[in-house]
Amino acid sequence: MHTSIQPKTHDRTTPQRVAFLGLGVMGYPMAGHLAQAGHHVTVYNRNPEKARQWCAQFQGQSAPTPALAAAQADIVMACVGNDDDLRAVFLGPDGALAGMQAGALFVDHTTASAQVARELGTFAAQAQVAFVDAPISGGQAGAQKGMLSIMCGGREQDVERARPLMQAYAQASTYMGPLGSGQLCKMVNQIAVVGLLQGLAEAMAFGERAGLDMEQVLAVLTKGAARSWQMETKGPTMLARDFKPGFTVNWMLKDLGLVQDEALRNGAQLPGTTLVQQQLEAIASQGGLDLDISSLFRPLARS
Amino acid sequence: MHTSIQPKTHDRTTPQRVAFLGLGVMGYPMAGHLAQAGHHVTVYNRNPEKARQWCAQFQGQSAPTPALAAAQADIVMACVGNDDDLRAVFLGPDGALAGMQAGALFVDHTTASAQVARELGTFAAQAQVAFVDAPISGGQAGAQKGMLSIMCGGREQDVERARPLMQAYAQASTYMGPLGSGQLCKMVNQIAVVGLLQGLAEAMAFGERAGLDMEQVLAVLTKGAARSWQMETKGPTMLARDFKPGFTVNWMLKDLGLVQDEALRNGAQLPGTTLVQQQLEAIASQGGLDLDISSLFRPLARS
Repeated sequence: MHTSIQPKTHDRTTPQRVAFLGLGVMGYPMAGHLAQAGHHVTVYNRNPEKARQWCAQFQGQSAPTPALAAAQADIVMACVGNDDDLRAVFLGPDGALAGMQAGALFVDHTTASAQVARELGTFAAQAQVAFVDAPISGGQAGAQKGMLSIMCGGREQDVERARPLMQAYAQASTYMGPLGSGQLCKMVNQIAVVGLLQGLAEAMAFGERAGLDMEQVLAVLTKGAARSWQMETKGPTMLARDFKPGFTVNWMLKDLGLVQDEALRNGAQLPGTTLVQQQLEAIASQGGLDLDISSLFRPLARS
Repeated sequence: MHTSIQPKTHDRTTPQRVAFLGLGVMGYPMAGHLAQAGHHVTVYNRNPEKARQWCAQFQGQSAPTPALAAAQADIVMACVGNDDDLRAVFLGPDGALAGMQAGALFVDHTTASAQVARELGTFAAQAQVAFVDAPISGGQAGAQKGMLSIMCGGREQDVERARPLMQAYAQASTYMGPLGSGQLCKMVNQIAVVGLLQGLAEAMAFGERAGLDMEQVLAVLTKGAARSWQMETKGPTMLARDFKPGFTVNWMLKDLGLVQDEALRNGAQLPGTTLVQQQLEAIASQGGLDLDISSLFRPLARS
């Protein structure tokens, strides 16, 4: 599978030596944008075939371990699956931290827990390495276009230092507060998204069953108090039964797991979010793990 | 209580004889805009003091019954509380229908059931009177500014006939389909709004408990996939514990009652909506009937 990226006009910035760990759906194009912006990028991926493919496409180089990828880098970016994957590429004898030089910066784009950001930040500090948690939103399309939105936690000067690089694939990167704040902000985002989507799914299914012309309904509702980005983009695809991701049920279940863990710590009540999580679990158990989260509409629709 | 309206530049339109039934929070300014647009408005209100006040403010006239208000009117508008109030002003010896001439048009701005629109439409047809269901959205502020959004059901030519008048207080009026379709579209809107608001409330409360700078969080989230009109307008007021209506818990509970009745007929499943309805019931039972629906945040917030 060849992942293309869309050309982006890059600001002139001093070329830097960068390592990028994790060439998944998001990381692959993000690393590509860094290379196209003129940086010297060394990639690492658990599956080396993907790394070879990336090197062929972007004339970069790859390394066999995170430590070796990180050894020559000023800044190391990572975008992996979850807390455990992140620990694996960061810690241990082959992990990035073992290779990083004092004064280098680690920027984690994984959507992970705030806890693991603080935990790895502590290890980083002991090695005089800076750590920033910087989860992203904007999905695969945002990564390909280089138009992600990034929520950053850590020390403000470290975020500032990462910003010129992140500009290669971001439309906005915002400082949110101390380590973990990026992750917490992403969680707030996901809570808002799933409540909104469930309401939208119920509204669309109700309207269909009521026999309304739903195209017309959407045209009216997107001008009023129910208006949302999700309604504008996912309303029509729900009605068309088009559940291509976008953002998968699988990914959202992972993110809601992080949300619930954090809620146990901070005491937040999440009755609506928990209900949507159950709906998503049911969709997943019926083979829908890789559908877009707008498939919340599916169990509600007549057919 | 003096209800002011904000000046609006009215399109030139042929002055018509209009009756307006119901001078509540919405009807009072709507009838005012009609008068200011140059129409000859006769008002009726259950509480005559309010009608006297309206006449003094807008140099109009009032009638002691709906039938008498409607007797000289080309078009009769109503904006009353619920199905029963609507039956009361439309049917019976003193009701509008008894006074209306053949060929006149009744436009109902009440948020009511689709059933009552069809029921009264049948009575209207027998008397050669046209009936349009035309619930509104935009709230009290929208009514005062003359910027409501109107969803219309009935015969298309009847909606067209009402349009020049509705322009006095609407920014948009859209034809949705046969009688009841306006009401059904409004229900779709309310389902989408409450799901969205619950998600927003949980997100805001979670973020506060997580210790985030919530102003900053809102600034970031309103640029992304969680973006909504409610987030932009109600996010900040939730955080400020400002629950002035807006749109009250009481009104939304009424609308969700209509939604649930209709769902029993059309088979729609509403797990999220039902959950939010329970939250609103709980707020109502604790004295919150007249708070804005964004008070969904209140039981979730630390204080």
